[in-house]
Amino acid sequence: MTKKRVTDEQRLLHGGDYNPDQWLAYPEILKEDVVLMQKAHTNTFSIGIFAWAALEPEEGKYDFEWLDEVIERIHSFGGRFILATPSGARPAWMSKAHPEVLRVDASRRKQLHGGRHNHCFSSPYYREKTQEMNTKLAERYGEHPALLMWHISNEFGGECHCDLCQQNFRDYLKDKYENDLDQLNDSWWGPFWSHTISDWEQIESPSPIGESAVHGMNLDWRRFVSHQTIDFYKNEIEPLRDITPEIPITTNFMSDNPEFTPFTGLDYSKFAKEVDVISWDAYPAWHNDKEDTATLASKVGFLNDHFYAMKDQPFLLMESTPSGVNWHDVNKAKRPGMHYLSSMQMLAHGSDSVLYFQWRKSRGSSEKFHGAVVDHDRSPENRVFKEVARLGKAMEDISDKVVGYQRKAKVAIIYDVENEWALNDAQGFGLKTKQYGETLEKHYQAFWDKNIQVDVISKEADLSKYDLVIAPMLYMMSEKTAEKLQDYVKSGGTLVSTYITGLVNESDLTHMGGWLAPLKETFGMAPLETDTYYPSDENSLEYNGKIYAINDYATVIEANAASELAVYQSDFYAGKPAVTVHAYGKGQAYYIGARLEESFLEDFYGELITDLDLKPALDVTHEHGVSVQAREADGLKTVFIMNFTEDLQVIEINEEVTDIQSGETVHGRLVLHPYEVRIVEK
Amino acid sequence: MTKKRVTDEQRLLHGGDYNPDQWLAYPEILKEDVVLMQKAHTNTFSIGIFAWAALEPEEGKYDFEWLDEVIERIHSFGGRFILATPSGARPAWMSKAHPEVLRVDASRRKQLHGGRHNHCFSSPYYREKTQEMNTKLAERYGEHPALLMWHISNEFGGECHCDLCQQNFRDYLKDKYENDLDQLNDSWWGPFWSHTISDWEQIESPSPIGESAVHGMNLDWRRFVSHQTIDFYKNEIEPLRDITPEIPITTNFMSDNPEFTPFTGLDYSKFAKEVDVISWDAYPAWHNDKEDTATLASKVGFLNDHFYAMKDQPFLLMESTPSGVNWHDVNKAKRPGMHYLSSMQMLAHGSDSVLYFQWRKSRGSSEKFHGAVVDHDRSPENRVFKEVARLGKAMEDISDKVVGYQRKAKVAIIYDVENEWALNDAQGFGLKTKQYGETLEKHYQAFWDKNIQVDVISKEADLSKYDLVIAPMLYMMSEKTAEKLQDYVKSGGTLVSTYITGLVNESDLTHMGGWLAPLKETFGMAPLETDTYYPSDENSLEYNGKIYAINDYATVIEANAASELAVYQSDFYAGKPAVTVHAYGKGQAYYIGARLEESFLEDFYGELITDLDLKPALDVTHEHGVSVQAREADGLKTVFIMNFTEDLQVIEINEEVTDIQSGETVHGRLVLHPYEVRIVEK
Amino acid sequence: MTKKRVTDEQRLLHGGDYNPDQWLAYPEILKEDVVLMQKAHTNTFSIGIFAWAALEPEEGKYDFEWLDEVIERIHSFGGRFILATPSGARPAWMSKAHPEVLRVDASRRKQLHGGRHNHCFSSPYYREKTQEMNTKLAERYGEHPALLMWHISNEFGGECHCDLCQQNFRDYLKDKYENDLDQLNDSWWGPFWSHTISDWEQIESPSPIGESAVHGMNLDWRRFVSHQTIDFYKNEIEPLRDITPEIPITTNFMSDNPEFTPFTGLDYSKFAKEVDVISWDAYPAWHNDKEDTATLASKVGFLNDHFYAMKDQPFLLMESTPSGVNWHDVNKAKRPGMHYLSSMQMLAHGSDSVLYFQWRKSRGSSEKFHGAVVDHDRSPENRVFKEVARLGKAMEDISDKVVGYQRKAKVAIIYDVENEWALNDAQGFGLKTKQYGETLEKHYQAFWDKNIQVDVISKEADLSKYDLVIAPMLYMMSEKTAEKLQDYVKSGGTLVSTYITGLVNESDLTHMGGWLAPLKETFGMAPLETDTYYPSDENSLEYNGKIYAINDYATVIEANAASELAVYQSDFYAGKPAVTVHAYGKGQAYYIGARLEESFLEDFYGELITDLDLKPALDVTHEHGVSVQAREADGLKTVFIMNFTEDLQVIEINEEVTDIQSGETVHGRLVLHPYEVRIVEK
Repeated sequence: MTKKRVTDEQRLLHGGDYNPDQWLAYPEILKEDVVLMQKAHTNTFSIGIFAWAALEPEEGKYDFEWLDEVIERIHSFGGRFILATPSGARPAWMSKAHPEVLRVDASRRKQLHGGRHNHCFSSPYYREKTQEMNTKLAERYGEHPALLMWHISNEFGGECHCDLCQQNFRDYLKDKYENDLDQLNDSWWGPFWSHTISDWEQIESPSPIGESAVHGMNLDWRRFVSHQTIDFYKNEIEPLRDITPEIPITTNFMSDNPEFTPFTGLDYSKFAKEVDVISWDAYPAWHNDKEDTATLASKVGFLNDHFYAMKDQPFLLMESTPSGVNWHDVNKAKRPGMHYLSSMQMLAHGSDSVLYFQWRKSRGSSEKFHGAVVDHDRSPENRVFKEVARLGKAMEDISDKVVGYQRKAKVAIIYDVENEWALNDAQGFGLKTKQYGETLEKHYQAFWDKNIQVDVISKEADLSKYDLVIAPMLYMMSEKTAEKLQDYVKSGGTLVSTYITGLVNESDLTHMGGWLAPLKETFGMAPLETDTYYPSDENSLEYNGKIYAINDYATVIEANAASELAVYQSDFYAGKPAVTVHAYGKGQAYYIGARLEESFLEDFYGELITDLDLKPALDVTHEHGVSVQAREADGLKTVFIMNFTEDLQVIEINEEVTDIQSGETVHGRLVLHPYEVRIVEK
Repeated sequence: MTKKRVTDEQRLLHGGDYNPDQWLAYPEILKEDVVLMQKAHTNTFSIGIFAWAALEPEEGKYDFEWLDEVIERIHSFGGRFILATPSGARPAWMSKAHPEVLRVDASRRKQLHGGRHNHCFSSPYYREKTQEMNTKLAERYGEHPALLMWHISNEFGGECHCDLCQQNFRDYLKDKYENDLDQLNDSWWGPFWSHTISDWEQIESPSPIGESAVHGMNLDWRRFVSHQTIDFYKNEIEPLRDITPEIPITTNFMSDNPEFTPFTGLDYSKFAKEVDVISWDAYPAWHNDKEDTATLASKVGFLNDHFYAMKDQPFLLMESTPSGVNWHDVNKAKRPGMHYLSSMQMLAHGSDSVLYFQWRKSRGSSEKFHGAVVDHDRSPENRVFKEVARLGKAMEDISDKVVGYQRKAKVAIIYDVENEWALNDAQGFGLKTKQYGETLEKHYQAFWDKNIQVDVISKEADLSKYDLVIAPMLYMMSEKTAEKLQDYVKSGGTLVSTYITGLVNESDLTHMGGWLAPLKETFGMAPLETDTYYPSDENSLEYNGKIYAINDYATVIEANAASELAVYQSDFYAGKPAVTVHAYGKGQAYYIGARLEESFLEDFYGELITDLDLKPALDVTHEHGVSVQAREADGLKTVFIMNFTEDLQVIEINEEVTDIQSGETVHGRLVLHPYEVRIVEK
Repeated sequence: MTKKRVTDEQRLLHGGDYNPDQWLAYPEILKEDVVLMQKAHTNTFSIGIFAWAALEPEEGKYDFEWLDEVIERIHSFGGRFILATPSGARPAWMSKAHPEVLRVDASRRKQLHGGRHNHCFSSPYYREKTQEMNTKLAERYGEHPALLMWHISNEFGGECHCDLCQQNFRDYLKDKYENDLDQLNDSWWGPFWSHTISDWEQIESPSPIGESAVHGMNLDWRRFVSHQTIDFYKNEIEPLRDITPEIPITTNFMSDNPEFTPFTGLDYSKFAKEVDVISWDAYPAWHNDKEDTATLASKVGFLNDHFYAMKDQPFLLMESTPSGVNWHDVNKAKRPGMHYLSSMQMLAHGSDSVLYFQWRKSRGSSEKFHGAVVDHDRSPENRVFKEVARLGKAMEDISDKVVGYQRKAKVAIIYDVENEWALNDAQGFGLKTKQYGETLEKHYQAFWDKNIQVDVISKEADLSKYDLVIAPMLYMMSEKTAEKLQDYVKSGGTLVSTYITGLVNESDLTHMGGWLAPLKETFGMAPLETDTYYPSDENSLEYNGKIYAINDYATVIEANAASELAVYQSDFYAGKPAVTVHAYGKGQAYYIGARLEESFLEDFYGELITDLDLKPALDVTHEHGVSVQAREADGLKTVFIMNFTEDLQVIEINEEVTDIQSGETVHGRLVLHPYEVRIVEK
């Protein structure tokens, strides 16, 4: 194993979004920035994200001088810059002169100018203008030694229903269905409610004032939105690839908030293929009132492991806040120590950066109270500023033990966004209790609690390198995927599946004639019906002598070759199997028929971890809330030991390791203060 | 009494919506259907409901061959078909070529193509096309021996605000108000807020972006929507009456869901006059978490007795589910036994059928998880399929003891949809606590619990055949209705009324000068003011030595000739009468001034039942949750004894009866298992 | 001090909105009105408020005869009339012929005709028509001896986004920003998200389908809406000023409901300058389930003291209900005695009237169940009618001890509507817990409980006459205001401020470089950061040996010259100051850093009242829920002693006073029945 880096930088990146275009009328602020940047131990800045109005104040009239100056200032102290293309927001003159750039919403209302992230992805004018702008940026800054990376637009998302997009949607469908309406009607279950399409021009995107019940179309529309967004992105990067072929390209991905689950607006598994480096914007609501700190930390881990797995390489934390955000109902700042802890966690899970939105708090408009490194007081004595500087110093110290280090896992959880689209759209089961993302995060937490590293992969990923693959609620499953899972087990893999799995194909059409044959064979059983629970419904199962409560879903199972691991304790299927295992080929397949309280997952996977001899990142004994995660390179492991509790934790390290920061040897008892992090080498 | 049937069928109908047009690409499915239909003991199918795109795939190009084939298949095993007109959903080509068929919503947004049940009821084109289509159907299938009935469109409802409908609304008003705007302005209380109409063209239907506060107009709009819908229906049936005068016609009515109260979208009391047979779609949420099974069963009884009373003859259950639906928040399947029990209940209350939506689960789109007889597994071993088949067999066995048997009642509850429209629109009282439908269902349950049969009638019905008439919350009451009630009591009837009664006339204008004279005379008292309660407000009354809690409403009463039956226990009207009775003419009139907990209704009506010597369907003693309902013909009674509890019930039958299914004599102690039904003859 | 009156009337006004135009078809009703008006001891009626359709039934065709007659009838028994201009609602013919009068909503939907209060404030046609109408009214009735006042339109509010208003908005901005877009862009923080405006025509008002995040624009839009509304009002009154220069002019103001806090739709502090007499519509929800009667009474006091302070003179209660309203979720009538009590409270706080909406309940439409003096029963024996008549008689008896009497206060609370706009718009802190109005009302209640009179003033008011000024949550504060507060303290004033104060300037731009210098100097401390709490977060402080709970907000303070009065008990700022005081100049400045439970405000202000030797309206000892308020003139005090509890209260009067109504001397122990009022002279 050799050290691989995602950029030419050998140090961890620290810095973030820098919006000098907001401060051009305040030259003293711009000068102050350079001083404070060094005090804060920052080294990398994303610039120009919303700067179109500053770069092209009138159509065809460009102004790059302010940007030249800003870049030189950053360069002057050894900083790097990530240059953004400014397409995330348009100038007002453009909307006025070229209204085609404005979106039309699902209710077919032409939007007015305003906000951001709301251009039509089809508009020929906007595509041309972004290429023109990006060409100028590449030509002017492409060879600047401080240029680290391209940052394309910002947080892609949303959709447009204008006539241009309708036509593109139709073209996308013609292409997909080989110009054959019969194929489309079959896939969309056209004859239902007389919804047969007899001419391509009859197709209109889903709308609350039109069609919303054709699930096949809804699914194709979501696919088209992803397709069209990525296509827009590809258009944007063309001049960059031409002019600066060696500069890596990224765009900042997101999570769904406030649930803190994978983003469902776009198919990132497809988008990931088009970027060189994954980067994402992480805004966990630390100290919230619905979950303990460890549970939220586990979710952060889950999402990080998802972004890591997208390209199986380190990623960048492109945005985060050093204190709080401004869009929660309660905007609470991170308590002392949390910023250091939560940032180190990102590095532990594979980030090569801690970058912020934003460097300096805006003076006006809607984000003026969003957390930033420099507050309105402009003071380096500000609590947040000092916490940032402390982190920056620590990052400098550990850079060479982190950059180029990889993440390794023998366990994988499959997340499939198309499955989530189809599942959420499904009229059936409990309309509010599907919670696909949350369910995956609960399975994940059973491993996080035991410091077993996990990859959160797409269904396209190579499974062969995993000892254990977990695929909960994979409602939508093609025959091909079913066969892939079958092959995986046959070849010796261990597979875990759950209720609501394998019901529809890739067009959201149900599989006919019972469960898919590969699944029946692999699991040695078949689900007969899914009982859906009201919150007050009660049931339970017994597993290894313990009783576990059931919520939301219980599958009635016909066990054939499979063995029963647990049976239902009440209702009309009392005594029937609820959890089964089937030895198949060289592997085994588990089916968990009901949604169970979290302690079940803990115990069930605990047993599997033992059976499969899965190893934690470090041999350490501790209470709930401590997390140990590692990155490795060239036989070395950098291990982060993190206390995600508000209490002092006494833990036991059962191997001899070296504290990277202090150099001291650590073995045996170790005391961790609340939110404390220790970084050791093994 | 002779046996009257609503169709030419001598057997109970079992089957339901069959949508072969969804499966034309799956010939093996169509063949399988015929085999399974016989296995399921089904005999009747509604076809073509959403088949327009299949019947007329291009404008003017028809295809009936697939339908011919389907009909022959059904006929081949002795099945019958109910032929639907396909107007419930249009093909996309029609919306594209003739956008006038698309509705405009109340916010004046032209709708796009999509969904169903959303054509403009005024569109001349659509009216012409439905006649054309219906003519073709009648000509082709009118003489088919298996044709049982016409099923017009599907679940009529909704409204359109397009220019054509605006003009029709104005014409409707011109007709109603004899071309006299003074009449209209008086009726709408025009001068309020300067809302006087000085030209018919100024009238626009109610809109969230226009007028919503003119209650007289709101009421007329609802009346117009009913009128226009029925007019559309009449247009549809013209060719059917011409070509097939002997074939009965129905359209499927509904309830309001999830409250499970009478449908408020249309005035069914008017619509009922235009159909030959009442049919309705019943989707109670069995096993839900807000009420016990018996309470929901009582509501089912209420709605059935409402539909029965519409034409005072047996009706059809046109749609139901053998398992669950797909549109509840929690879509729970019927537990074992519930399907048999709940279906038998429909027969007990006067249905001559158990029909399903739908025969086979769709493979795609939004209803693919709606319960159906045949599941995606295509298996007759499926639990639901087996329960359907068991029921079908039982229906065959009891047909001759049910078909042609009538329902009889000496008690009537008045339900008036116009009253509900006006009451819900009224700004006053508690905006969320009016609950007219729910209130009626609570009064009803006091009788259901004691097996006393009730007719749920309109205010137009003949009252003379009833010993007891109950008219709760008849807020809107014309002088004519008040006089009718007065005459009823004068002639010896017993009348029960409540708080919020008789306040406005048929134009939603208040009666001036105090309560209507006929009411004052009949009840011997007058309501002075209605106190409206917050949920935390507490009051009670004492009646027959027991204390009952008051919720929501309490009327302060001026008792004149009436006797006090109960007095308020607190608030400024403590000690004043809350419940009164007045002997008037040969009858008596009760006024219940407050909304009381259910045990009051139980005790109050219990006493009335004794006083009036009202007889239950059978002399039987049991705990709460058992229901006994009967149908009768030629001096014979078929009595359904039903256990709507999850417990074993030991009941006492105080008469000698014969079990229709086993032939054994039943007398005295009888054990009913959970959900068990026994059908006996007396 | 001489007695000053707001009108030429020497008696208290009793009566209210009279809408004879609703009853022109009922001549017997109009005759009955005059009889009942006298029975009810009423003397003043507001007429014509929504009478446009009656006054101008067709364009250009007027009818004043009915109004002549109504006025003569009122005059005949010595009544007075307040003549309304009818612009609050248009006739339908006008909307049809001149659609420019119809508003366009924020989503850019042209509204249909309907409702009321919804004309475009820019429409040239409507402005011309209102002048024409008002000219006719002034010419015809201006010299009528019974004309008391002009009532302009009704409850001004709302906004329009039509093209005319867009153009006026742009003109307003050009004027404000001196035709300089740089000024505007600076003020709106234009470069944020590329929102720089490069041409005035690019400006569009805030919209959910356009711009909503430019807080500077949102603020200017609210200012423009106020400006344009007042401009419309000024246009309306031009002919009245010309023709009837001696007749005072008012328009009826409102509160925000159901919170019962100051109205945020318009800037009344600006509007107040344009009217001669303040009048307002008070609809407290007596007997509700979220607060006790005394708490609501205190809010009523707060709003009254706000309206009094607007012009520092008595005002009119223009609308109120003698029973209940029709727009609450639960529309509860006032219990016996409450109408008398709550009306007397209005007089105590400076109203010279008790006027109702409305005289007689409508017969139809949406307000037919809104409380009124005459009910549908038309009976003077009605409970409400009798309570009104009793009050009217009492008002006649006390008139000469009230009219011309002023309110006096040494304590002021600052309310600033622009601050509320900016604060509510702020993305930050807790999005749902800002509650500016409610917070002020809680500070106020600490004084109300102790019978200390308070002025609720604007930030423009002269502070020099107050011993104590309280300015909670003055988030938006210009340097000028900061200096004004500094001067006030320097000159000997006592100032109390709180968390979330002084953060942004008048453009909603944050102050840079830390807290404003005048504030730092005055308070001797600086707020470092504001911690925002989840509902479950717990903290407290100790003050004078007692522990008080903290909710929602806690400011971390850097105390410099200030003294700590209380410190935080937990969280990372435990032990740090939470409440400080600073002796500055001749005065002192308190800073309350956290939102504290109400008992803190009670104790804290209790101490301040003692320190500053603030005197109650009368020296009286009583339990919570009794309120004592006074008006004074020529050295005399008329004191209202009011029991806002449902219990009998025994109080101690420590001075000798005379009961105005009975003439008896009162001293020492006094028993107050529930809701009882005693009016004494001192």
